[in-house]
This record gives sequence, C-alpha cells and structure tokens, in this order.
Amino acid sequence: MHPVIGFRLGTTSAGIKTTGRPDLVVMAMAAGSTTAAVFTQNAFCAAPVIVAREHLGQQQPAYLLVNTGNANAGTGKAGVRDARQCCAALADYCGCSVQSVLPFSTGVIGEPLPLEKILSSLPFALEKLDEHGWEAAATGILTTDTVPKGASKKIHLDGHTVTITGIAKGSGMIRPDMATMLAFIATDAAIEYDVLHECLRAAVERSFNRITVDGDTSTNDACVLVATGKSLAPVLERDGVNHELFCAALTDVCTQLAQAIVKDGEGATRFVTVAVDNGRNTRECLDVAYTIAHSPLVKTALFAGDPNWGRILAAVGRSGITGLDLDNVQIYLDDVCIVRDGGRAPEYSEAAGQQVMDKQEITIRVVLNQGVCTESVWTCDLSYDYVKINAEYRS
Amino acid sequence: MHPVIGFRLGTTSAGIKTTGRPDLVVMAMAAGSTTAAVFTQNAFCAAPVIVAREHLGQQQPAYLLVNTGNANAGTGKAGVRDARQCCAALADYCGCSVQSVLPFSTGVIGEPLPLEKILSSLPFALEKLDEHGWEAAATGILTTDTVPKGASKKIHLDGHTVTITGIAKGSGMIRPDMATMLAFIATDAAIEYDVLHECLRAAVERSFNRITVDGDTSTNDACVLVATGKSLAPVLERDGVNHELFCAALTDVCTQLAQAIVKDGEGATRFVTVAVDNGRNTRECLDVAYTIAHSPLVKTALFAGDPNWGRILAAVGRSGITGLDLDNVQIYLDDVCIVRDGGRAPEYSEAAGQQVMDKQEITIRVVLNQGVCTESVWTCDLSYDYVKINAEYRS
Repeated sequence: MHPVIGFRLGTTSAGIKTTGRPDLVVMAMAAGSTTAAVFTQNAFCAAPVIVAREHLGQQQPAYLLVNTGNANAGTGKAGVRDARQCCAALADYCGCSVQSVLPFSTGVIGEPLPLEKILSSLPFALEKLDEHGWEAAATGILTTDTVPKGASKKIHLDGHTVTITGIAKGSGMIRPDMATMLAFIATDAAIEYDVLHECLRAAVERSFNRITVDGDTSTNDACVLVATGKSLAPVLERDGVNHELFCAALTDVCTQLAQAIVKDGEGATRFVTVAVDNGRNTRECLDVAYTIAHSPLVKTALFAGDPNWGRILAAVGRSGITGLDLDNVQIYLDDVCIVRDGGRAPEYSEAAGQQVMDKQEITIRVVLNQGVCTESVWTCDLSYDYVKINAEYRS
Repeated sequence: MHPVIGFRLGTTSAGIKTTGRPDLVVMAMAAGSTTAAVFTQNAFCAAPVIVAREHLGQQQPAYLLVNTGNANAGTGKAGVRDARQCCAALADYCGCSVQSVLPFSTGVIGEPLPLEKILSSLPFALEKLDEHGWEAAATGILTTDTVPKGASKKIHLDGHTVTITGIAKGSGMIRPDMATMLAFIATDAAIEYDVLHECLRAAVERSFNRITVDGDTSTNDACVLVATGKSLAPVLERDGVNHELFCAALTDVCTQLAQAIVKDGEGATRFVTVAVDNGRNTRECLDVAYTIAHSPLVKTALFAGDPNWGRILAAVGRSGITGLDLDNVQIYLDDVCIVRDGGRAPEYSEAAGQQVMDKQEITIRVVLNQGVCTESVWTCDLSYDYVKINAEYRS
C-alpha cells in the first residue's frame, strides 16, 4: 500500500480483544485536510456513529480513533458518554478540540466500552503514528475477518502523482447501506469538502453499497475519505477530466475493498457476481439482484457447487417487481444460458452448468428484457462455516 | 384426524420419488361441494398453479390431483401441457370434465413431469379413495418434510357437529405469500363460494402467511379449502355467530398446520415466535418481525442458544420503518426484558437470557411504542443441517 503524504496511522494492542491482537488504531491527518464520511442507515446506530456525525457537522477532523473488539452499540447514553470521553482524551494528548476527533468502534454489540483500556493505550498508538502504518492498521481494525484488506492506486492529474490508499474490515453483518462496517481511505489530492463528499457518496454507492454477505446491516458501518492536499496536483474541481479520473480511481479502490470483504465473508467459499441486465431502473435491477444474493437456497446451492437454477428462477419470481414474464427472462451461469423462453434452455446441459459451478468465482446473470438499466451486486455462498462462526461468535 | 363426510382421499406410489415412497394423491369431493383456493404470488408460478387457477375460474372442481417429487415449475409450455394431460386422464377415468380437476405438484424445479408414471398410477390412487384416507395422504404429499402434518377440529353450529380437517406439507423454500406450499383442508359445513373464499383468505392471512423458514417463496404454493355441505348445520351466512365460530376454528386448523411446517423447517432445532407490539400498523409490525425472522445472524444465534440480543437490536434497526427511536423500544426474550431506555435493561442478566434460550420454544417480543397494532410471525433457527439439507438436495 502506497503511503499518502500527510496521513499517518498508529496501531497498538489495548487488550480489548482477549487474544491480545492489535485492536486500537489512531489516524492523524495534516492540517488543512478535508474529510468526508458516510455512515450506517441502521436506525439504531452505535454511539461512536452518533458522536462522529455530530463532530463532523461541527468542524473538520484532525484525528480518527478506531477500536475493535467492542462495538459500543446498544449501550445507551453511557455509550455516547464513553465515546466522547475517548475523543476528549485523545484531544488532550494532541492539543486539539474534542470535536476534531471522530470515534469508530466494531465488535460485540451491547457490552460497555472498556474505557480504561483504551485511554491508557492511546499514547502507545500515538507514538507509532507513521505514513507507512497502513499494513498494521489494516490488521488492527479486523474482527472475524481472516485477512487484512487494503487497496492502493496512483493516478496522474495534470502531470502530478496523486495517491489513493484505503483499508477496510468486515466479514459478517454485511449488507452495507450507505457505507460498510469501517473503511478508511486517504488521498493526497486537494479537494474541497462538498466535492469530496460527492466523490465519496458516488464511489460508495457503486462499491460498498453493492455487496452483501448475509443481508444484515450493521449498527456501526462507516466509510471515511480524507484528502490531505499534500500532492502537487491542483485542487480538484467539480467537473472536468481530473474529476473523472479521480472518481474512477476512488471507485476502483472502494470496489477492491468491497470485493475483498465479500471474498472474506464469513465461511465464504465462492465469490459470486449477480448481474441483472435490461431492467427498467436501478431499483428493479437491485431488487432482483439482492433477492438472489440473499436467498439461503441459492447460497447453499452455491456452496454445494450445484447448478440448481430452479432456485434462482424462484428467487427472481418472488423479487416483487411488476410486469415480469418468464417467457422474456433469460438466466445465465457465466456464459451458459440455462433459462430461456419460459423454461430450461434447450441447449443447456447439466455438465455445462456444473463446469461453471466448479469455479471459485461465478457470475449469475439475469436478463429481464424490460428496459435498459444494468446493475451488479457481489455476494458469497452460505456454508457450514457461516453457521459455525455465528453460532460460536458473540457479535 | 376426523374424516369429513363427502371428502375422500386416495394415495399411491407412482415411482416419481426414487425411494418408492407414496407420491401421488387424489382427493374427491361429493357433488355440490364448494372449493376455494389461494396460490403463490411468485411471478414465475408453476404450471399446475397456472392450470388450477384457470380451472377454478371456470367451474367448481370435483377432484384434486397432487404429485410430489417433481414441481413441474420452470418447465415452460410443455409443463402446462403435461399438467392439463394429467387432469384430462383423471377426468376420463371419473367421467367428469377436465376443468373439474385441479392439479398440484411439489418437488424438484425444472425437470419435465414424469407423465407416464402419473397416468399409469391414477387407477391405483382412485381405488384407494376413502374418507379415512387423511393419514396416508398427509404422508403422500411430503418432500423434505420429516413428519406428516395434519390438524382436525370439531365445532358445533346450531347444535350440529361440523368437522374441519386439513393436511399440509412444507419444510424449505417457506415464506408463503398468500398460501403455503400445499395445504388441503376440508369441512362438511355448507358454505357458498364467496363466503368460503373470504374465510380461507382470512385464515391463511393469520396462519400460513405468518410463517417463514428461509424467506424463499415457492413457485408452487397452494392452499385449498373444500366445503362438502354434508353436515346437518345450516348454510354458513357471511355474518353471525356461526361464521365467527367457523372462521376461528378454520384459523386454528390453519395455524396448527402452519406451525407444524415451521417446527419441521429444514434443520430446525427451535420454534420461535417473533411478536411485535404497539406498532402503527400491520405493515410496520410485520416489517420488523420478518427482518428479525430472516436475519441469518439472529437465526444462527438461536441455533447456538445464545441470548445475543445485539443482533436482534441491529435487525430491528435496519427494518426500514420510520420514526424509530431506540430510547422507546423494548425487547424481551419470553418475559425477560433485555433492552430498555436505549440499552441493556439494568436488571437483565446473562443467566436469565440463557435460561430462555435453552428452551425449544422461544418468543422474541419487540415493543415499538409507536401505536396500537400487534402482529406475530413464526420461524425457526438456522442450523448446520439447513445448509447440509440444501447443499445436498436438489429442490
């Protein structure tokens, strides 16, 4: 991962996770940075989300403070007080206002935040602050994840190199709605807040908001984008080639992170793209795609490597969109047409379907023939291990 | 199960299931019976559903013909032709019109119906027709079910005994929408079609339409109610005490059958009632209840017997209803309050939660405090065996 000039990360073990793994990360941005963030749409958002939203509305942040092992969610007024106190302690150490710290938490829901552990470990995280701290931070924000997730890209704007680097965590309780459970992205481009926020929203909509592991939207989802402005490229304007280049690169980084979350989905053995073509609008395409992506019957068939297209067909049929006529719908596994003209395609063979299902990465494509809109979502299968992980882990 | 005067059932093995289990059932109703039915809302309904709807719209039926082992769904025009041919063959044997036979199928989706096996076995089913044939038929309509499901009730209308008896099948692909995958109920009450249809719709709405195993709505769901009119009770009028008594008994029979389906849900180890109180309307209560009932994280915690209320809270929060304020919401496991005033109830103990979770039957109760509406749905947990059954079985 390429470092981003003006953005430093420090990681330590505060002992929140019983295993002694790293679980506390501080990120510091250079003066003059702009920060945009999107948060979970879960109505019961966690205490750190409440506080982060509030602080971001008051002034631009200088520090991000992340703990794992405890979500500080469902913790009532005490949880909000604890989140504020973490911010205040970090602000004291750094000589900034409490509002310039944004807090983030992930882990068990409903347990009180272990405040003392966090407060006493802040100095250790601060002394590790380094522009090369991305790898350590990528590990420090994990919970049930099995691999750290990072993505990094360099682009050239008016001849100047601009870097975009990001990390993310997430494995279960993944069906992000506006953001996924913790992604932090930084760039050294110079971007005003309004433009930055638009760039982030657009990129998140095409990446984190297109993945699902289990359909469960977390209480703690957040995605943050910091622009330090330390590259030599000119300030990014709302329109023009530079804007397009930057947004494309940002979407690419977000998509890599989002897909890495699905690939590391709890118990996942296959990575599945569900593409819906020729719908009337985005809503219609996504309704069909998510109905397939959330169907336990489709997901267990994917786990089994069984080209069980009847379950895909049943899922499309119950997706609730209007005017659907099976005679006009085609369903493909990769390039193999399985359903056409109201039933199984005449040329389809079980062997051809099986050949696709034996792969680790599979595309299910549904052609609705109702319009010109196309959308994709990414998901994984439902395995014994998903049940095992979630029967044994207290999220 | 009490026999119903004027309603006979005959069951045989047609060899559709490779195991040689009974898989073909004919039901015959006395002349003058009225029949109402509700069918799946899946847009890709199966061939027998298309034909049954059409026949029912043309005249009152005399026979129901059910096969298991093959759903005749996703089979295109050939499937519709096959369904019609089954009806025609039965009509030939019985000397009635093809329209007076309603076909029903359940089993694998997308395979051609084994027409010859069904046609050649019809005489064997017909010769078994008997008012005492309910138990055999309850077994004959099963697929992945592990137990036959029946319910029976006697009530007294104006001093005359009226019987209501029903059977159902279903274990996976269960989130009925207007009906569940195959339930057949008969009564010897005398009821005109319009009243009968209203009674059935009302009963189904409170029973089969309140259960979910995996959120997957089948292509073949159907629920049929036959009134033979052979009891001595007067014709049921739309209003009055008799109507109330009958509807209550019918709802009771349907609820017993619906709950039996959930208890026999694929891999189910626990029976869970999700009750939502004090919502503003039915939609709001059901949105919250189904979000909980479909959450893989809640369902795996139920499998583990883990009082993991954070997952319930997260599910309520993402259910999409407006004006939700965690400070006003209470969540209970049976009578144990776990969430109150925005966080964990002060008096809650893990031991108290664990005591509830150790039971086989559990109620999750969410009090929204937004209105006066109350609704319940019934569901089961998500276990290793659900994954195993659906990774190994071709539905």
